Amino acid sequence: MHWSRWGDPNRTATLPDNAGELIAFAFGDVTPDPAVELADVRLPESRLTPEQRQAYAAAVTPAQVAIDDTARIEHTRGKSTPDLLAARSGDFSAAPDAVLRPASHDEVVEVLRISARERIAVVPFGGGTSVVGGLAPDGSAYDAVVALDLRRLDQLVELDETSLTATLQAGMLGPQVEETLGAKGYTLGHFPQSFEYASVGGFAATRSSGQSSSGYGRFDAMVVALTVATPAGTWRLGRAPASAAGPDLRQLVLGSEGAFGVITDVTVVVRPRPQAKAYETWRFESFASGATAMRTLVQDRINPTVLRLSDETETAINLSDPSAIGLNADGGCQMVCGFEGTEQRVARMRGEVGEVLSGLGGTLVGQEGGDAWADGRFDAPYLRDALLDEGVMVETLETATTWTNLPRLYDAVKSAIDAAAKEQGADPIVLCHISHVYPSGASLYFTVAVRETDDPVAQWAPVKRAAGDAISRHGGTITHHHAVGRDHKPWLTDEIGETGVAVLRAVKETLDPEGILNPGVLIP
Amino acid sequence: MHWSRWGDPNRTATLPDNAGELIAFAFGDVTPDPAVELADVRLPESRLTPEQRQAYAAAVTPAQVAIDDTARIEHTRGKSTPDLLAARSGDFSAAPDAVLRPASHDEVVEVLRISARERIAVVPFGGGTSVVGGLAPDGSAYDAVVALDLRRLDQLVELDETSLTATLQAGMLGPQVEETLGAKGYTLGHFPQSFEYASVGGFAATRSSGQSSSGYGRFDAMVVALTVATPAGTWRLGRAPASAAGPDLRQLVLGSEGAFGVITDVTVVVRPRPQAKAYETWRFESFASGATAMRTLVQDRINPTVLRLSDETETAINLSDPSAIGLNADGGCQMVCGFEGTEQRVARMRGEVGEVLSGLGGTLVGQEGGDAWADGRFDAPYLRDALLDEGVMVETLETATTWTNLPRLYDAVKSAIDAAAKEQGADPIVLCHISHVYPSGASLYFTVAVRETDDPVAQWAPVKRAAGDAISRHGGTITHHHAVGRDHKPWLTDEIGETGVAVLRAVKETLDPEGILNPGVLIP
Repeated sequence: MHWSRWGDPNRTATLPDNAGELIAFAFGDVTPDPAVELADVRLPESRLTPEQRQAYAAAVTPAQVAIDDTARIEHTRGKSTPDLLAARSGDFSAAPDAVLRPASHDEVVEVLRISARERIAVVPFGGGTSVVGGLAPDGSAYDAVVALDLRRLDQLVELDETSLTATLQAGMLGPQVEETLGAKGYTLGHFPQSFEYASVGGFAATRSSGQSSSGYGRFDAMVVALTVATPAGTWRLGRAPASAAGPDLRQLVLGSEGAFGVITDVTVVVRPRPQAKAYETWRFESFASGATAMRTLVQDRINPTVLRLSDETETAINLSDPSAIGLNADGGCQMVCGFEGTEQRVARMRGEVGEVLSGLGGTLVGQEGGDAWADGRFDAPYLRDALLDEGVMVETLETATTWTNLPRLYDAVKSAIDAAAKEQGADPIVLCHISHVYPSGASLYFTVAVRETDDPVAQWAPVKRAAGDAISRHGGTITHHHAVGRDHKPWLTDEIGETGVAVLRAVKETLDPEGILNPGVLIP
Repeated sequence: MHWSRWGDPNRTATLPDNAGELIAFAFGDVTPDPAVELADVRLPESRLTPEQRQAYAAAVTPAQVAIDDTARIEHTRGKSTPDLLAARSGDFSAAPDAVLRPASHDEVVEVLRISARERIAVVPFGGGTSVVGGLAPDGSAYDAVVALDLRRLDQLVELDETSLTATLQAGMLGPQVEETLGAKGYTLGHFPQSFEYASVGGFAATRSSGQSSSGYGRFDAMVVALTVATPAGTWRLGRAPASAAGPDLRQLVLGSEGAFGVITDVTVVVRPRPQAKAYETWRFESFASGATAMRTLVQDRINPTVLRLSDETETAINLSDPSAIGLNADGGCQMVCGFEGTEQRVARMRGEVGEVLSGLGGTLVGQEGGDAWADGRFDAPYLRDALLDEGVMVETLETATTWTNLPRLYDAVKSAIDAAAKEQGADPIVLCHISHVYPSGASLYFTVAVRETDDPVAQWAPVKRAAGDAISRHGGTITHHHAVGRDHKPWLTDEIGETGVAVLRAVKETLDPEGILNPGVLIP
């Protein structure tokens, strides 16, 4: 992962030839804002004492305790736009004092034991793809902060081909999971936009949801069992697909964002690798009519693998296909439908979906747009970096609510973003899509693009605040699949109540009495 | 509900004409064991002081504070076989000191406030159908115990026909839910065997699963939102169908068995009332081949509404059709498949299911057996009472595990029950069926019938212990859909770990610092 950009350092998004024109048309007069050079980045001294370093070395071997600048820089913060802006400006004040790379559950347990004794904060680190400040703990009350890099926990522990479950170590990244399972004929089917860098432990700790959630389900719904290393000891949960043996404590670990323990392996449901895949696009007159069509499908339990509806603005900009970015003049709203499974199942799903969508005013455009979406599905973060270079800030935020409340929430959030951005001196472009649907409701995913003014971090903060306030006030969840981190804490109490916060605190005190795990993240 | 039997006092199961012969053949020489007369039941004095009674009267109105014998008897324990045996012997030592019938959430909150102040234990009481000792708290450390009867909370609060959700008050019983929703064209689709008496709050508090779980899902999976009255205040959870705003705290309330708070309403996903219903039976050579067929269906996401496979013994006895009880000589194992939905969907599902089952060695028997099962699906508890009268004890227990572990767990539990019952001096008949299936595993539901010896309560205890030990030792969950109560506490620590128990205790202390809620239930 690039130290100040998304993804593969050798891969960058190329803006189209007419990008300059388009940007000027859309955003006005922008000022390019290049990142500092890596060589110019200055880090604070590591605060780890030689004794502490030695203790960790005994736990994970000396080679796996890194205090060099590169390791520390690569484990600083996540990949939200404010994170990138900080990195691009050379601000690495939040760098951990060391990076530890354990190779086993037992090594993780030992690192936690040492850290609790030494009162050193521990940041569990998988793919480093957090976009909510989940990797930026408040270490001020601690002698030091270490990043616990879990990527050496990268093995398929067990594949049960009768129960169709796989036990995956937490540090496996998305592509490793699919390659490993794929070689044996299976897929997990979890493809969030961060897929190429995000880890199994991160999927679990943040309640991730992937682009194929309509067909494969959210990550939390795939989980059968978990192993967690906590300062209070090892915790194994999950004996059966379902149970009535009290509250489902797995659901307390899922979404715990490294604040309750370190997830070291996850047992998930897998599926046979699909024989066939087809992606097609449909066009609807309006976002409202497209949303009704989506709702009809999911309430009738017709679940294509992928279901994604862009609003009028997102359809016009066509960000879903970065290679063809530009103004789309056809009007209306684009829906992508993806179908994966056996040839027979794909054919049947396409037939069923086609019948419903046609009956509700949809027009089949064809496979071209769908294939373009599938090909470019993990590329948007690269595009963000290219636009940041040009002085255009791009950030996303998302929520979910009931179908009934969806139009009201959409309007409220869009207006709030628009007004707040204007107040900061630049007209934004606000795009939205629905990409996770349930019988009772759906998600709303907003992309905001705006010309950077003098201090883009300060420019974004009030926009984010206005969006969060609008979400909370209009009954949406503060996040459908990005987690709480530090960025969403201001709205969590409103969502789960003082009672909910007290429960989280009590669980935290039980599992992590010294409070060393990701302090300041999740719990208000 | 009858005070010492299941269900409607005016409805009893009639044993077939040849019952005496069959019972003698199956169980040997039995001694009829009639229940005491209600008039002979003696209750301990109510320990409620006049001041306490007055305080409760102010909270719920004087008419809704009952200390008469009938009310107290009707709120004593649940309906497990040991509960019935105690009732039949006239043992009402566990009777609550009063029965309170609040009519609103606020009245529940007020009752909890008074109870915490007075250190009076509170047993939330819905339908009174617990079979795990969930209504038999340990009140020894308290000045008094009150049953909090929630059946006056019986309103449909809201029906959202766009989001297809209904907010149901906790005291609505199964038939009320279906009648109320049915009048508007909807169904909840939750039909546990206790359906006719069990309540919405009980479904939530125990993580109930119904006979149509294959098509409609478990109750916990239907829940979108909850309101809970706790001694620490009102707690509302659930803003969206799914969220990544930290752990899913709804899943901490679901399965909390009245120990964390009193659930006062639940918002659930509803579905259009099915146009068509069809139930059919299939026959497989063996339990193993039938289980493989079920697994194939669910792993291929072909979900008939009902899916139930009896083992060889249950098929032979044909308990699934009490009107035709007797020895079935056809051999093999019976599977019931139920289909509900639009005419078109039912036809398609039947076709798909038929293709899979035929291909895996199943033979379609026809609709007769399926219809008989559907007609008699809520009658088995009445049959239990008729057999208890004759001196034959019947009890059930259940578990769930992965498909891989299912055969091993089945053998282990069956052998353990058989050996333990024999040690108590009588040969049991042990029946089993699979009726809740998931891609990664399934439930096992055992029915045990055995001739009563001198002290049937003492006779059953070691059998239950042996079954629980076998379940726990062989990796099953101690309960798939009956909850923990007091009866399953001995195995909970093994299942969720000391860490899990510590977490439950911490949550309990946060929500119920005086420990007044259902003391001794759920938490080891």
